[in-house]
Amino acid sequence: MEFTVGQIAGVLNGTVEGDTSLRVDRLAKIEEARAGAIAFLSNPKYEPHLYTTEASAVIVSKTLVLRQPVAAALIRVEDPYLGFTMLLEFYQQFARTGKRGVEQPSFLGQGSEVGDDGYRGAFSYIGESCHIGRGVLIFPHATIGDRCRIGDGTIIYAGAKIYADTVIGSRCVVHAGAVIGSDGFGFAPQPDGSYRPIPQIGNVVLEDNVSIGANATIDCATMGSTVIREGAKIDNLVQIAHNVEIGRHTVVAAQSGISGSTKLGDFCVLAGQVGLAGHLTLANRTTVTAQSGVGKSIKEEGQVLQGAPAFNLRDSLRANAVFRHLPELERRLSELEKAKSKSEQTEKS
Amino acid sequence: MEFTVGQIAGVLNGTVEGDTSLRVDRLAKIEEARAGAIAFLSNPKYEPHLYTTEASAVIVSKTLVLRQPVAAALIRVEDPYLGFTMLLEFYQQFARTGKRGVEQPSFLGQGSEVGDDGYRGAFSYIGESCHIGRGVLIFPHATIGDRCRIGDGTIIYAGAKIYADTVIGSRCVVHAGAVIGSDGFGFAPQPDGSYRPIPQIGNVVLEDNVSIGANATIDCATMGSTVIREGAKIDNLVQIAHNVEIGRHTVVAAQSGISGSTKLGDFCVLAGQVGLAGHLTLANRTTVTAQSGVGKSIKEEGQVLQGAPAFNLRDSLRANAVFRHLPELERRLSELEKAKSKSEQTEKS
Amino acid sequence: MEFTVGQIAGVLNGTVEGDTSLRVDRLAKIEEARAGAIAFLSNPKYEPHLYTTEASAVIVSKTLVLRQPVAAALIRVEDPYLGFTMLLEFYQQFARTGKRGVEQPSFLGQGSEVGDDGYRGAFSYIGESCHIGRGVLIFPHATIGDRCRIGDGTIIYAGAKIYADTVIGSRCVVHAGAVIGSDGFGFAPQPDGSYRPIPQIGNVVLEDNVSIGANATIDCATMGSTVIREGAKIDNLVQIAHNVEIGRHTVVAAQSGISGSTKLGDFCVLAGQVGLAGHLTLANRTTVTAQSGVGKSIKEEGQVLQGAPAFNLRDSLRANAVFRHLPELERRLSELEKAKSKSEQTEKS
Repeated sequence: MEFTVGQIAGVLNGTVEGDTSLRVDRLAKIEEARAGAIAFLSNPKYEPHLYTTEASAVIVSKTLVLRQPVAAALIRVEDPYLGFTMLLEFYQQFARTGKRGVEQPSFLGQGSEVGDDGYRGAFSYIGESCHIGRGVLIFPHATIGDRCRIGDGTIIYAGAKIYADTVIGSRCVVHAGAVIGSDGFGFAPQPDGSYRPIPQIGNVVLEDNVSIGANATIDCATMGSTVIREGAKIDNLVQIAHNVEIGRHTVVAAQSGISGSTKLGDFCVLAGQVGLAGHLTLANRTTVTAQSGVGKSIKEEGQVLQGAPAFNLRDSLRANAVFRHLPELERRLSELEKAKSKSEQTEKS
Repeated sequence: MEFTVGQIAGVLNGTVEGDTSLRVDRLAKIEEARAGAIAFLSNPKYEPHLYTTEASAVIVSKTLVLRQPVAAALIRVEDPYLGFTMLLEFYQQFARTGKRGVEQPSFLGQGSEVGDDGYRGAFSYIGESCHIGRGVLIFPHATIGDRCRIGDGTIIYAGAKIYADTVIGSRCVVHAGAVIGSDGFGFAPQPDGSYRPIPQIGNVVLEDNVSIGANATIDCATMGSTVIREGAKIDNLVQIAHNVEIGRHTVVAAQSGISGSTKLGDFCVLAGQVGLAGHLTLANRTTVTAQSGVGKSIKEEGQVLQGAPAFNLRDSLRANAVFRHLPELERRLSELEKAKSKSEQTEKS
Repeated sequence: MEFTVGQIAGVLNGTVEGDTSLRVDRLAKIEEARAGAIAFLSNPKYEPHLYTTEASAVIVSKTLVLRQPVAAALIRVEDPYLGFTMLLEFYQQFARTGKRGVEQPSFLGQGSEVGDDGYRGAFSYIGESCHIGRGVLIFPHATIGDRCRIGDGTIIYAGAKIYADTVIGSRCVVHAGAVIGSDGFGFAPQPDGSYRPIPQIGNVVLEDNVSIGANATIDCATMGSTVIREGAKIDNLVQIAHNVEIGRHTVVAAQSGISGSTKLGDFCVLAGQVGLAGHLTLANRTTVTAQSGVGKSIKEEGQVLQGAPAFNLRDSLRANAVFRHLPELERRLSELEKAKSKSEQTEKS
């Protein structure tokens, strides 16, 4: 994927200062760029790098006044950051998600329909009676179980496993190795101490614009649906148990785990390695800091929680500050006790 | 999968009040059911829903006395919960695990034998010299390495990876993406600070009725076997290291990790995100609460542990209760010190 | 894989006492070995087992003086442990990694080159314009995206997913289900509270002799590279975020998570379930104990950290020791307060 500076300036509706025939084949930060790369300058703090960068081209503002000569070709645009972002998106689309067509061998079950303009990699598997929308990209080794529905423009990366009856909206991204729809962890204890599996017949529903990270796991509902609402972003290795609901535009960072039947509101943020107990409700805009464990429902919106067990951030920070000095605290206490004991003896004597 | 109310009543050995020709195609909770669904009423607390439910049919007790008219068809049976559970299992078996036969392309290595009445999905891989029992379901993209043995009625879901020499019992379930038999994390430090891998030549043994969650990982033993005993249930994203033993009917919830050579007794319960250090022994019926970390062996049976590092639940709850008030504790301590200092000054003066 | 005692003695350059024609087909610990196995005796503490073992053969030191008769054949060598380790490596190479050739169906994209003497399992997928070195083993269901480079002698186990543009060095091991190169978790908040994905166009670079555990996830850089340096060992289910750098010969145990842009030095050790915040720098030889959470950069080399939030190990152990006795501490404090209040009343009266 190689373009000339002139071609890029055309796409960005910019003007060139320097050699329009220079070729660039990658994007880079201005402070790290080497020959062949294009960079951008938006934050004035980085301007010194402009005069030393090895980049072949740099996107700069129309209004930038140069203080020294620049070796790189310049592409002048209204908003350099926006221009660079356009190139980034174009690049990603081209390099990662530009695939179209069907590679062989691939498997398409009876009664399944697949929309136009998509991609099915070699060894991809689509079961029976599925409905796959337009422009859906299904990478190699992805498994789509029977009776699944997937909306337009969704990307299922390599080796993602979607169990039967899953419903996935439009413009979702499911990263490699993610598992959607595995059985909930439900077992009925028997009189002899053994366990009998409770049938898990529900499914998982991802609404539109949902992102699921690599090797994350989302269990189906025991009955009904485990639901990830519109725009929610789930990171790598997150565990979402049966009958959980994740609210709109809620973000769950890597390795967090949410136990069965818990409901998160909209616009919540869970940092990494957080654990939520089962059957909780978290109000909208709840934030939980990394490695915290929440065992109680949160009714008031906009709370920030920390600790395991978690309570409000300010109190948690203060308690942790004292925790470090516990040995000193104990020493001070012992001294008071000694003093008291001594003064009592003095009184008695 | 659509049945009439009459057909279902026949299966459950029940009697119908209402239209036997009504058709239902799914199971639902009585408070959430819509037209086309069948629900059940067992707990009297839910009886009010019976008079408002949109379910097409409800399974109720033979002895239930109606207080109002009911729109749904009723199927009266001895034990409504049991009846519903039978339908659940029937449904799950039909919808999820009813597959039989061999889809193509699939791979069967030299010298491997596969019993009758099973399923091998497209792109499933069975290596050389394997012995696969009767009625085993192997979903697409599952990999079974060389010389594995799998007992009757076991289910290996999509994309599970079973390394060579693994032994799996009968009626086990291995969920999508689980990895069984990867190398133990053993490295010998060298004089220059680098590490040399210690060969890991053991295997993993799952006894009968074991369940392994999605994307869980179980390492092979360095020598000998990592063993998961009969009836143990392992949840999603659990890590089980080399040479670990998990006792009979022990339950390990999601994202817990068990370090090398640790042995869990029978009937233990680890909640989510628990960590166990290596080379420990946990007595039968030990329970560890969520996010706890256990660093010492537990010899007495039936203990409940909490915290990181973990100690007994009651003491841990009490210590945590004080932890929250540490800033206040420090303030009280400071006041006593001030008072003492003041009284000392008074005495001196 | 069956050999005679004579053959093994030949390989190890040892001398046999006993039947050279005895056949062994596996390796075992001396205290667990049964007929057909070969064991070794190095630590004198284990000598009593030599006289009771059921092993068919035991590797012992040239200088060992027997105190009782031994049933097993003996192979006498200079260093029994070294001899056994040679057998272990030979066994592992033969049983696990001895595969060569190409199974069908497998997929090789346009413009990709694969060196000699390697293995490509059935259903393995190699995209376009890849360069795969000599003696590389690619197990079934592994996905290698477009434009990847993999060095000589590297092993990619079943179902590992390598995204486009990844660079992997020589003699690396990537275990089953690992995902390398998934998108970093970067989203720009929009005015309405929703998130827009930030294009992730960087890649992942693994240098030589790196090991990646089963179902671990390594995100690509937003721009530039996420880098795992020479000899680093990453365990199962570890999460490594975008733009992270892991130093040479650094070890990260299972289920640990490293947030975006954090740099670990050389020879560091993270125990299991550790969490590191983003944008940190950890000095060389930093050790972090299990389940700890590090939120600040560590500048001094060789520190040992514990706790969440983590501080130095010694202080953390002492603070934890007091933590357990917090209820008692509070009681002692209350008693001092009561005594003070009483003495004040006495003074007043």
